[in-house]
Amino acid sequence: MSGPVIGIDLGGTNTLACIMDAKGNLVARTHRNTDARRGPEAVMDTIAEASRAACEEADVDLETIAAIGVAVCGAVDHEAGIVLKTGALDWTDIPLSKGLHQRLGRPVVLENDVNAAAWGEYRHGAGKGARGMLAAWVGTGIGGGIVLDGHLFHGPCGTAGELGQTMADTTGTEPRILEAIASRTGMRNLAAERAGEHAGSSLLEAVHGDVDSIGTHHIAEAFKSGDPLAIEIASIAASVLGSALANCITLLSIDTIVVGGGMTEELGEPWLDLVRARFREDVFPPQAGEWCSIVRTALEADAGLVGAAMLATDKA
Amino acid sequence: MSGPVIGIDLGGTNTLACIMDAKGNLVARTHRNTDARRGPEAVMDTIAEASRAACEEADVDLETIAAIGVAVCGAVDHEAGIVLKTGALDWTDIPLSKGLHQRLGRPVVLENDVNAAAWGEYRHGAGKGARGMLAAWVGTGIGGGIVLDGHLFHGPCGTAGELGQTMADTTGTEPRILEAIASRTGMRNLAAERAGEHAGSSLLEAVHGDVDSIGTHHIAEAFKSGDPLAIEIASIAASVLGSALANCITLLSIDTIVVGGGMTEELGEPWLDLVRARFREDVFPPQAGEWCSIVRTALEADAGLVGAAMLATDKA
Repeated sequence: MSGPVIGIDLGGTNTLACIMDAKGNLVARTHRNTDARRGPEAVMDTIAEASRAACEEADVDLETIAAIGVAVCGAVDHEAGIVLKTGALDWTDIPLSKGLHQRLGRPVVLENDVNAAAWGEYRHGAGKGARGMLAAWVGTGIGGGIVLDGHLFHGPCGTAGELGQTMADTTGTEPRILEAIASRTGMRNLAAERAGEHAGSSLLEAVHGDVDSIGTHHIAEAFKSGDPLAIEIASIAASVLGSALANCITLLSIDTIVVGGGMTEELGEPWLDLVRARFREDVFPPQAGEWCSIVRTALEADAGLVGAAMLATDKA
Repeated sequence: MSGPVIGIDLGGTNTLACIMDAKGNLVARTHRNTDARRGPEAVMDTIAEASRAACEEADVDLETIAAIGVAVCGAVDHEAGIVLKTGALDWTDIPLSKGLHQRLGRPVVLENDVNAAAWGEYRHGAGKGARGMLAAWVGTGIGGGIVLDGHLFHGPCGTAGELGQTMADTTGTEPRILEAIASRTGMRNLAAERAGEHAGSSLLEAVHGDVDSIGTHHIAEAFKSGDPLAIEIASIAASVLGSALANCITLLSIDTIVVGGGMTEELGEPWLDLVRARFREDVFPPQAGEWCSIVRTALEADAGLVGAAMLATDKA
C-alpha cells in the first residue's frame, strides 16, 4: 500500500467522505447533504470540498493521497469511470471519475455502492476470509455484489450481481422481481394488500392507516413487538429472499453470504433466522445449508464507504 | 499439447470412448454398453477395454496417451477423482480415477458430464470465443455448467452450476425445482396434468393414452405437427427455462448460453425461439437480451465426450 486514500459514498441524500490510512484505519470522516437538485457539477464540487475537509481533519496532504474510491447508488461503468444511471440523483452518463480527477488531481475508482459494500465486508468486515462471497443489501430496493477468487466479480459483460432484478417466479405469467417483494418497498406493498385482514395492527396504527408512509423502523418495531401483519410481511420477504439466495449458491457454490442494508439492520437476527431457514430448505446440495453461512453486515451503514476506500487502496 | 488423449463419456446406458490427437481431432471412437448392474469394477474393466480398442483403432500406443478425461453422469469430486453419486449407475463414492489409473497407467481427469459438455462447447463448439458461457442441458433432467475467465467454474465449494436444482418459484410454499418443470420428465408431468383438457391430442394418441411412456421424440413430433397439448407443455417448459436463464445472466453477466441435451436437439430452433423470447423479457439489464446470445449445441451427443477429451488435453 502506497499511502492514504479517500473513500466517498455518494448517496441520494447524504454524501460520506473518509480518509483511510495505509494500514486500513479510518482516520477522518465527514458528511455533506448531497442536494442533487443542484446538478452534477455542484455535487462534484461538494465531494471535492468534503474530500479536502477530510484531508485537513486527518492532517494529510491531498498530494499524498494514493487514490480516491467512490461508491455510487446506481449503475456505473467502473472501467470508464462513468455513472450510467441513478434514480436517486437523476443522473445519466455522468463522467464522475473525470470530474473528480479534474478537481482533486488524484486517480479515481468508481463502483456501484452495493459492490463497494461487498468489497468492504470482504476486506474488512463480515466476509473476511470467505472463499467466495455474495452480498445482499436490503433497503428501498435490493442490491447484490459478488466476490470470487479474491476479486469483485463484474462478469464478462460488466453488469453482474443484480440480485434484486432476478425474477422471483419463473413459472409466473406476470414478471415480478425479487426487490418488488423482499425490499422495504415490497413489504410496504404486501402490507397494503393485506391491511384489510389486519384491522388493529400496530403497524397500521403507527402510520395512522397510511401504508405509503410505512418506513423501515415502523416495520421493525411492529415485527419485534409481535404484530401479526408485520410478522406476516417480514416472513414472506425473508422466505422469498432465502430462496433466492439458495438459488445463487446452487449456481455459484459460494461459502459466505453477507446480508446488510437498512431493513436487515433494523429487523436483526430474528428476521435473518427466517431467511436462513428457507435458504437451508431450498439450497442444493443440501450440505450447502451447512457449509454456506448467512451473516449480518459488520460494517453496517459504513460498508459502502469502507469498501470505496479499500477499492482505492487496492488500486493504488 | 503433449500428445493424444483418451476421452470417455460414461453414461447410464452407453459408454463412449475416443482418441483425440494433439491437434484436437477425433481420430477414433467406439462405444460399449455400460451395463452398470455388473458393478463398478466390471464397468471400469469395460472402460479400460474400450480405451485400448480406441488406441488400437487410432494406431496409438497407450504409453503415448497424455491423459484420460472422463465425463460422468452424476456428481463428482473432480479434485479427488471420486464419483460421489450417480442415479443412473447407482454408484456412491467410487474412486474412478484411481481405478482407471490402475488399469491404464495414465493420468485421469474426472468431470460431471454437463460440465464436460460445457467445456467441449467452449473449446470446440457453439461456445467458442465466448467471454463467459453457461451450458444448459435439457434431457431427463436439466444440467448446467459455467465457464468463466477461460476455465470451467466449479465455485469455491466445488458444486457450482446446478441450474436444474434451482427453485423455479421463490414465492411458492411448495418447493419445485427447474428440472421438475422444464425437462422431459417435467413436460411428461405437465402432459399428465393437462391430458383431460386435450382429448384427441396426437401426443396422447402416440402413446395410447399412457403418459408415462411419453418419450422425447413423441413430444418433439407432436410439437412439430402442431398438437395443442404438445405446444402447451413445450411452451411452458421453454418459458420457465428462459426465465431461469435470464436470472443466471442477471447475476453473472455472461455473453453466451449454449443449450443442448436430447430435448433441445429434438425440439429444435422453434422451441429455442420460445426460450429466447422469455429470456429477453426477463433479463436485466434489458440490453443483455441483445448482447447475450442463446445458441444451440454444436457438438450434440458428442459434447460430453469431446469435452472430456479436451479436459485431458488441457491438463496434459
